[in-house]
Amino acid sequence: MPSAHASPFFNAHHSPTGAFASFTLGQRGASGGLGLELGGPANENLFIGLQSRDGKTYEALPFYAGSTDDSVRYDVSADPIARKQLVHPFPEKAITREFHIGSDTWRAGDLTFSVFTPHPAVPDPEKASRHALMAALVPAVFAEIHVDNTRGRKARTVFFGYAGADPYTHMRRFDDTAKAGLVGVAQGHRTAIASVSPGVTSALGFLIDTCLDPGHPENAAFGLGGTGALLAEVPAGTKKTFRFAICFHKAGTVTSHLDCRYSYTRFFPTLESVATYALAHWNAQVAQARAADRRLQRARLSDDRKFMLAHAVRSYYGSTEFLEHDGQPFWVVNEGEYRMMNTFDLTVDHLFFELDRNPWVVRNQLDWFVRRYSYQDKVRLPGDETEYPGGISFTHDMGVTNTLSRPGYSTYECFGLHGCFSHMTHEQLVNWVCCAVSYAKATGDTKWLRKNRKIFLACLASMVRRDHPVPSQRDGVMDADSNRCRGGSEITTYDSLDASLGQARRNLYLAVKCWAAYLGLEDVLTSFGEAGKARLANQQARLCAATIASFATEDGSLPALLEAGNASRIIPAIEGLVFPFQWGMASALSESGPSGNLIKALKHHLRAVLKPSICLFANGGWKLSSTNDNSWLSKIYLCQHVAERVLKLPADPRADAAHKAWLLHPENTFFAWSDQMVAGIARGSKYYPRGVTAWLWLRR
Amino acid sequence: MPSAHASPFFNAHHSPTGAFASFTLGQRGASGGLGLELGGPANENLFIGLQSRDGKTYEALPFYAGSTDDSVRYDVSADPIARKQLVHPFPEKAITREFHIGSDTWRAGDLTFSVFTPHPAVPDPEKASRHALMAALVPAVFAEIHVDNTRGRKARTVFFGYAGADPYTHMRRFDDTAKAGLVGVAQGHRTAIASVSPGVTSALGFLIDTCLDPGHPENAAFGLGGTGALLAEVPAGTKKTFRFAICFHKAGTVTSHLDCRYSYTRFFPTLESVATYALAHWNAQVAQARAADRRLQRARLSDDRKFMLAHAVRSYYGSTEFLEHDGQPFWVVNEGEYRMMNTFDLTVDHLFFELDRNPWVVRNQLDWFVRRYSYQDKVRLPGDETEYPGGISFTHDMGVTNTLSRPGYSTYECFGLHGCFSHMTHEQLVNWVCCAVSYAKATGDTKWLRKNRKIFLACLASMVRRDHPVPSQRDGVMDADSNRCRGGSEITTYDSLDASLGQARRNLYLAVKCWAAYLGLEDVLTSFGEAGKARLANQQARLCAATIASFATEDGSLPALLEAGNASRIIPAIEGLVFPFQWGMASALSESGPSGNLIKALKHHLRAVLKPSICLFANGGWKLSSTNDNSWLSKIYLCQHVAERVLKLPADPRADAAHKAWLLHPENTFFAWSDQMVAGIARGSKYYPRGVTAWLWLRR
Repeated sequence: MPSAHASPFFNAHHSPTGAFASFTLGQRGASGGLGLELGGPANENLFIGLQSRDGKTYEALPFYAGSTDDSVRYDVSADPIARKQLVHPFPEKAITREFHIGSDTWRAGDLTFSVFTPHPAVPDPEKASRHALMAALVPAVFAEIHVDNTRGRKARTVFFGYAGADPYTHMRRFDDTAKAGLVGVAQGHRTAIASVSPGVTSALGFLIDTCLDPGHPENAAFGLGGTGALLAEVPAGTKKTFRFAICFHKAGTVTSHLDCRYSYTRFFPTLESVATYALAHWNAQVAQARAADRRLQRARLSDDRKFMLAHAVRSYYGSTEFLEHDGQPFWVVNEGEYRMMNTFDLTVDHLFFELDRNPWVVRNQLDWFVRRYSYQDKVRLPGDETEYPGGISFTHDMGVTNTLSRPGYSTYECFGLHGCFSHMTHEQLVNWVCCAVSYAKATGDTKWLRKNRKIFLACLASMVRRDHPVPSQRDGVMDADSNRCRGGSEITTYDSLDASLGQARRNLYLAVKCWAAYLGLEDVLTSFGEAGKARLANQQARLCAATIASFATEDGSLPALLEAGNASRIIPAIEGLVFPFQWGMASALSESGPSGNLIKALKHHLRAVLKPSICLFANGGWKLSSTNDNSWLSKIYLCQHVAERVLKLPADPRADAAHKAWLLHPENTFFAWSDQMVAGIARGSKYYPRGVTAWLWLRR
Repeated sequence: MPSAHASPFFNAHHSPTGAFASFTLGQRGASGGLGLELGGPANENLFIGLQSRDGKTYEALPFYAGSTDDSVRYDVSADPIARKQLVHPFPEKAITREFHIGSDTWRAGDLTFSVFTPHPAVPDPEKASRHALMAALVPAVFAEIHVDNTRGRKARTVFFGYAGADPYTHMRRFDDTAKAGLVGVAQGHRTAIASVSPGVTSALGFLIDTCLDPGHPENAAFGLGGTGALLAEVPAGTKKTFRFAICFHKAGTVTSHLDCRYSYTRFFPTLESVATYALAHWNAQVAQARAADRRLQRARLSDDRKFMLAHAVRSYYGSTEFLEHDGQPFWVVNEGEYRMMNTFDLTVDHLFFELDRNPWVVRNQLDWFVRRYSYQDKVRLPGDETEYPGGISFTHDMGVTNTLSRPGYSTYECFGLHGCFSHMTHEQLVNWVCCAVSYAKATGDTKWLRKNRKIFLACLASMVRRDHPVPSQRDGVMDADSNRCRGGSEITTYDSLDASLGQARRNLYLAVKCWAAYLGLEDVLTSFGEAGKARLANQQARLCAATIASFATEDGSLPALLEAGNASRIIPAIEGLVFPFQWGMASALSESGPSGNLIKALKHHLRAVLKPSICLFANGGWKLSSTNDNSWLSKIYLCQHVAERVLKLPADPRADAAHKAWLLHPENTFFAWSDQMVAGIARGSKYYPRGVTAWLWLRR
């Protein structure tokens, strides 16, 4: 992985697992910090720096307000102790960054600052030991400061601090009340930076300057100080290393409408207990982070892909929230800046990552969808108010910003719409099937499969009815909208694109996914001994494949909507192929297999549209829809995997370079990894978890 | 009380007791809202309005962003349902406000909106019944909307809603999950507006417009909507009244360094339980608010004074926070925008109000000061590093923003300073004595007095040693600074003024307060049978009075610092007289009594300085110091009481009009009642509790 990027100054997440927390770092200014339950960076001042060799001033990494503009100075008029500005940013040219999946290291002058995120797998909480769960769930990330003062002639002070932005609590020092040895600065019971390294002390001040020079040593305890810092001295002629834990905590009920608490509170009752554990297990945790670095470094991926994968995995962890309700585990992934909980069309994209890492969380989410977030509807044909039998489906999400939605309803889906915020009934039905089959295949959990026999049967019935109410008119492709649309139209996950991807009915992307779901259902129902239902599923798959293939146009491309006259062309036509591949269905994906017509059609389609005038941007970046500039990195990653591994097209390094350049565009770097790029600028789905589709690149 | 002010658009608190909560209302724009634990208004959009008679539009009070500027429009591009802007502000000329201590009523067109705050006395929690405590502590305020649609020809919708600004939780509807009958919109578990009035429904939307017109009725449940509103319909030709509770709640530990919870959580485990209780007891609570209105209306005070007293009492309640630690009550008053907890120099000003209302809270605070926030020091003379015996004193405060400071230390006091943020050792010592004597005199609680015998003795010893280390050089006035100043100087509560009031040593204001404290100590020590110590106190009081009187200058005024050549003149010279008056010590206050020299000197002083060139602003407002434009309303109110009741000077209505005008100056109205007025503009101590010194005006 490259140790130097165009600019090292981009925000990245450094997050524990399931704590809905992020130490965000990298963008200049007060642009990062210790965020808990936020939809974006905490925008706190971070102070990480070292006294200059001459002892007269202090140099810091540029992560505080004013650090990028010398004309912007703190107003120190209110400060009792400040005399002059002591802290200045390092010259930017002197700063380097080495960014990996598990470590992130900044070097400037004689200072080296590293943050480590182990990104542990989470063992099944119903089977795992207390020890294993504590190690996986401790809501902390790990930092180290190394100072090389071998060429210094004076002792120099190194510092690491922040000014917390929580509106309800104040900065404080652990060591004012905690047991001896634990040194820390904290905000309320929410966030802290702590250390047990010998020589580390704490200080509060209105400014970082007054933390460094409080006038009298007693003033380091100045309680009104909104800036807290840990300090240590490095004698002349020596090297020293100091270790830190960056901690998060929230006790008690954190959700509304269904009372849940963070699972980690079972083991960690307080912020201080998090710090104590994290510092006691610092070595093991950091070793895990370094091992993750090595694994990714060894992977056969280009540097650009390694970068994007590392960045995306970090953003994913920042959105994870492992809760429990009445002792029952509840795994939540929040939707980045939108903070919707377990948005199902993201769950289906996170699937591949989770099945490799924490397969039980997929089961957990599917169970919650069945138990609380499934519903029954009827369906309607366009322009016809008749209501025909519908069936089971699942909600778009389970809530937003720690507020669970009512059973059977998402927070997102409105009634009576045609565009964004309409229902995604058919898509989420298909998503449940694809996730469920994937979980069962990956784990061999036949007990779970059998327990959900009725759900699988209901899903098939529901899918078939959405094809068309009249059996003879079924062609495998969706024709009927949920009556929850009240005469409006269902949409797909591509809600903010134009109708080329947004409309669900006759949608090419959804049709291929339906084909895959039918194949999955056939497989599962066969295992249940439901030969008749399995045949129906197979028949629907064949109908679907034939219908799609029949829409091939002269140049080999397929229209985005399987209707006469549609001129849009979309890359995600091929997305659904990921599932049979995931399930090991080689025959289904073979050009000479039973769905050979579809496979060939999609291969021709992709070749026909991956052209500058159609589905490529000028710089080689992928453009999901020919009629829209809004392109989503998560889906690009997924489709790259399908193109390369299923359809055997060569990878295009120029595309990867373009996609990486989007993430590092100065307008985008504040929000770490973002998804929706409108001509390369992040306009939506910022600070987003969905990019872990890049995990598919690791599949051989 | 006047029903019309220069402008009705000033923020005022509407606060429950001890919940550190405020429904702040009155300033135009998104300037008020449901604030919990904040140092200023919540800056939320509030939507209070009524459909127009023609049904085509809605008119609202101007308490939302954009309401004051027609060119500012919401960006509705992201909204699925919005079609056009439906809600417009009422013409400002059509709006009137009737502002009282317990009620605040807004009228516009056919809409009347009232908020009621009972401001209950809080019974001693160790003696009171559960029923009485619930009634006093329910963390809610009460609202009513009355619509007169007798001249309307269509049914019209009335609405009351808000867009909560908490960064961690989302808006939600009670009725999505609560038991039947309770309708509400809430943010997380923190704030809510609820109703059980028949016909009231709830809605969420991105905008108030989409709450009012969600397209389809089901979309009123739109979970992503960050605006929540309660709605009701008033049929043509009818009048209707709807009742609301504006609720606050925070469960669990809310403080750091000493775990405390809100006392109300004993009775109210959830936000919903607050709403249910508040609505069930709406009548009794509102009756209490109306009774408070009547009591103040009957009081023999000018309208200007009634206005300021009502405003100040409201701001006080917004800062009150009744906690408990391990079942032990802990009464906290937060310091307005600064949120310091139980700042002692505010406690001593709140004293008079609390002794009339909740005397046990004074005892509670004094006990906490003894138990956790007292300390022992040594003292030093200026320019002399010798440390002489000191004694007991008390910290400036107990913490800040729910973070308790270490035992024996405040958050505010720094070491080694001469000005703002230095120690207030002598002043807080005197404050403990003055509060303690006042509590004992007001309640006759001799048991408590006896329990604190050692503290009273220690206070006398400590005061005497601060006069001068050498007995023969004592003159009753402070000469020695705490060694916590490390050679710096102690300050007084007037920290942000110049040395005329800020320096503690030889300070005229503090000297008179010391004289009062010595008299109080004499009285208490006599009751203990400590004749010798009582004599010592008396002797110090006489020395002090003589010293002060000896500094009288030619025009009868006294210098702010009892040193040669000081040219500043201060009104608070007379402040300390409030205590002997409070204690009923007529003889001590008599010009012919044992302290007649002091009383006469102070009377001459006040007459000499209450002049335009000295301690009056051009508009007649009081200027606490002749050498500084920073004048504090709380202290003005207190000194007015002393001037009129003790020194028998006539009240000056022109001064009251000036002080009221300060509060209603457009630059000041955002922060409700504020204290520090620099030439009439609030520059510090905003959103402040201290104005309850105005309660002294009621003393006959």
